[in-house]
Amino acid sequence: MVIKCSLFVATILDGFIARKCGALDWLPGSDGVTESENHGYTDFFASIDSLVKGRNTCDLMHTFGEWLYPGKKVLVLSSRFPKIPIRLAEEAKGTSMPPMEVVRQLEASGSAHAYVDGGKTIQSFLQAGLIQDVMITRVPVLIGEGIPLFGSSGRDIRLRHLSTGVLENGLVQSKYQVENAA
Amino acid sequence: MVIKCSLFVATILDGFIARKCGALDWLPGSDGVTESENHGYTDFFASIDSLVKGRNTCDLMHTFGEWLYPGKKVLVLSSRFPKIPIRLAEEAKGTSMPPMEVVRQLEASGSAHAYVDGGKTIQSFLQAGLIQDVMITRVPVLIGEGIPLFGSSGRDIRLRHLSTGVLENGLVQSKYQVENAA
Repeated sequence: MVIKCSLFVATILDGFIARKCGALDWLPGSDGVTESENHGYTDFFASIDSLVKGRNTCDLMHTFGEWLYPGKKVLVLSSRFPKIPIRLAEEAKGTSMPPMEVVRQLEASGSAHAYVDGGKTIQSFLQAGLIQDVMITRVPVLIGEGIPLFGSSGRDIRLRHLSTGVLENGLVQSKYQVENAA
Repeated sequence: MVIKCSLFVATILDGFIARKCGALDWLPGSDGVTESENHGYTDFFASIDSLVKGRNTCDLMHTFGEWLYPGKKVLVLSSRFPKIPIRLAEEAKGTSMPPMEVVRQLEASGSAHAYVDGGKTIQSFLQAGLIQDVMITRVPVLIGEGIPLFGSSGRDIRLRHLSTGVLENGLVQSKYQVENAA
């Protein structure tokens, strides 16, 4: 693989990435205006040329109003073939291909760095050994129950710690490299 | 409350504190020899005068061989009245009291700082608003499934970040204060 696939996720201390209903209201900047300017996201976003998102996460993004990924290739994953709203037909393509095929297609189209996002999508890419970099930002709150970041992969996935920084509001941001990626 | 109750836990990135079977084999120093000398545990252990442990965690500790808590009051919690092995009758007492009663009893006996440990015990103390300090050490591995650190508390629990340090082996250790403790 030449293409790099990265995670850039905010989780709370229990390890959830969203409430059960999908809400992100505990996330600083969850109004969608300030989030993209903070927490190293701007630099990360500039480094990627494509996004692979789960359908649920993508649905949620629509609710933020403006399209958040100008100039990026966006693939929306779903086990059923996902319907992309007509107004986004130019910006995003739907696919039901398995993760390895998605990565091969992105690579064939010249993509060098993909941002993988959404609970189930992250899990399936981790299980397939397709994630190289993991950036986790920990929000200092416990919500008790929600959508977990990582699911069962059938094997231990070891990561190498690269760096950790403390941001405003007590956010702790750590960068890891997956040691046993494909 | 005058007594302080603290957590000192190692979790992996998914948020689990042990495999489903209770095993801690992913934990550096899980042979029970070096663990107590590392990661700030020695200083933390010196600062406490009592331990409240769940029965499962306590059972696991027995398998390490030597008694790990010399000179400390130890309460073993269980919904059924826990049986303490005869050889530990001096070191540990069993109780099925609810968390608030446990804390009142410890305080009445002169305890100033209790170390609360074990998955269900941690959850019940958090739910009761009885935890003030939380030290979390993140081990850079994903095991996919296991015993979760925190469970549903029915409310968001906000924490204030106090400090974060990076230890050997890529461990990230963060200290928090519970903002809405009882």
